[in-house]
Amino acid sequence: MLNFTVGPVMSSESVRKIGGEQTPYFRNDEFSEIMFENEELMKEFVYADEDSRVVFITGSGTASMEATVMNVLTKGDKVLIVNGGGFGQRFVDLCNLHEIPNDEIQLDFGQNITEELLSNYSNKGYTAFLVNICETSSCVYYDLDLISKFCSENDIFLIVDAISSFLANPLNMKEKNIDVVITGSQKALACPPGISIVVLGPNALKRVEDNKCKSMYFDLKDMLKNGERGQTPFTPAVTILLQINQRLKEIKGQGGVETEIERVAELANDFRERIKDLPLEIKCDCLGNSVTGVYCINSNAEDIVDALKFDYNIWVNPNGGEIGNKMFRVGHIGDLTLEDNDKLVDAFKDLEKRGILK
Amino acid sequence: MLNFTVGPVMSSESVRKIGGEQTPYFRNDEFSEIMFENEELMKEFVYADEDSRVVFITGSGTASMEATVMNVLTKGDKVLIVNGGGFGQRFVDLCNLHEIPNDEIQLDFGQNITEELLSNYSNKGYTAFLVNICETSSCVYYDLDLISKFCSENDIFLIVDAISSFLANPLNMKEKNIDVVITGSQKALACPPGISIVVLGPNALKRVEDNKCKSMYFDLKDMLKNGERGQTPFTPAVTILLQINQRLKEIKGQGGVETEIERVAELANDFRERIKDLPLEIKCDCLGNSVTGVYCINSNAEDIVDALKFDYNIWVNPNGGEIGNKMFRVGHIGDLTLEDNDKLVDAFKDLEKRGILK
Repeated sequence: MLNFTVGPVMSSESVRKIGGEQTPYFRNDEFSEIMFENEELMKEFVYADEDSRVVFITGSGTASMEATVMNVLTKGDKVLIVNGGGFGQRFVDLCNLHEIPNDEIQLDFGQNITEELLSNYSNKGYTAFLVNICETSSCVYYDLDLISKFCSENDIFLIVDAISSFLANPLNMKEKNIDVVITGSQKALACPPGISIVVLGPNALKRVEDNKCKSMYFDLKDMLKNGERGQTPFTPAVTILLQINQRLKEIKGQGGVETEIERVAELANDFRERIKDLPLEIKCDCLGNSVTGVYCINSNAEDIVDALKFDYNIWVNPNGGEIGNKMFRVGHIGDLTLEDNDKLVDAFKDLEKRGILK
Repeated sequence: MLNFTVGPVMSSESVRKIGGEQTPYFRNDEFSEIMFENEELMKEFVYADEDSRVVFITGSGTASMEATVMNVLTKGDKVLIVNGGGFGQRFVDLCNLHEIPNDEIQLDFGQNITEELLSNYSNKGYTAFLVNICETSSCVYYDLDLISKFCSENDIFLIVDAISSFLANPLNMKEKNIDVVITGSQKALACPPGISIVVLGPNALKRVEDNKCKSMYFDLKDMLKNGERGQTPFTPAVTILLQINQRLKEIKGQGGVETEIERVAELANDFRERIKDLPLEIKCDCLGNSVTGVYCINSNAEDIVDALKFDYNIWVNPNGGEIGNKMFRVGHIGDLTLEDNDKLVDAFKDLEKRGILK
């Protein structure tokens, strides 16, 4: 199968090779060295402050979202959350569950944040800002410059969920005054799912230190302490951490994070250019590079998703809910090439010829 | 490397092959079918009541221990915990953290539970019992018959952490009135680490239903609801779940759970028999089949662990803490054979000849 979903995505041969090997014993210096290297490369790729730290949580992206909310925020905070889809709603639900005072900037599906919208929240005592910078449900890539400027001007602590945009869009923690970045193994890192990652800047580390987390598994203080010797409090998904190491080193060897982002951007732009003559529409004018939301003009989107799967061995990402019959999503992350775009576009053309895509 | 640690352990070629393949898209019927099969085989292998359910958590064994404590127990419980080592202590810490009233049966390192000990806790109003049936830190396998009898007589809800003993020692939920069984992917299931598993009997399901869990990621109600359609609330470690499926089906095909337990028991007994003439001692008289605690009579255990690793490419499991220079652990779970025991025993003999093991 050719996989254009937004995750799990396709892995390179070298990453898969590690998945096929025996899992090594890990309570030793050899594994610690790999973890130190993972931490350093993650810091480098998000341009984190030298004093930042990175934790690798065995769990989905939501595990890291919850660990962040539980360890970094308190009941004394007043949090502003961008809510324009399923993942923004998840941050709202997490804050409500953990009794973190919060307000939402509610956006319509596909809508971007604007300076005007943000200005309504200036000088209102907000202490923290939560955003899924690529709202993967709608494919909107929020304006990070605006958000960063707003947070800096209002002295607001900034948490960026970059689960689906790390390695696909530029992300510079220092330049944009970002305090926490969250990502996961199965998006543009292109490893199997099972590990999520939290990068904590100096202010975030102070918040963790001053906070008390009512969870053993999600206790970032414990993770940071074990991380000092390159270890984790509990048995992690060792194989996936080795695969992440391989992938990070490959990105470094191939020119670094900017080269990788350019590669993904080229795939995204190529795809978007080439479907212009097809009865498909891109409605969103603020897409990131990881994923494109594609509307079907006269066809049922679910039928197209199924036809691609069963007739062409191609997975694209269906959408849940009401929008599911109108729109599907095409990911540009993972081990994809321009030739893979050819195959997908050819399949669309063939579906059009067969009268299924109309 | 030949791996005799207690986990991660060695995987079969067929399980590793899946690790080397692309991770498939999983929000579809194909993956749901695999999850339904995983649930059924897990229930079969622990002899669970037909109305039991199984959840697969992306996380370490501790994730499932914490999810169980948070979802199954309440502040209204009075919990009795067997604490004879690091993992018993973890249950105590989890109950304290989540404010679950509890008392400990404190045992010395290597000591088993006795009828006399348990009798002190009869008719004292205990509502739940927590035990790591194989206390992996000391290698003690607690007397499940005694514990089961005590819980049945006192109408106590029984939670068994069988993380390192599932598939290595008999475990019959119905016969022993066990309400919850916890296990993990990287022990005798012999898959990479990253998934832990909770089997919930009918009384446990009722407790989950009546309880409110203050965690999104560990909410068993949400997992159970998604599990009804063979799915998980958040992206799971898909590859490991496919590997678990392969392994469970292989066990079934090779004669079922009893055959697998016999195979592990044979490996354990063979090893224990064959080290009798060496300057090594087994002090514990209540070992299970998964692991043997081995004391060095005149050598430093850490030196033996290192010599096995560097000179013979064999991993055994070092012990943490004070006991680390006296004792190491040899696991009998994973893709090991009697020939592998030969190699380990030959290495011991060679170390003796070289004057390192004395």
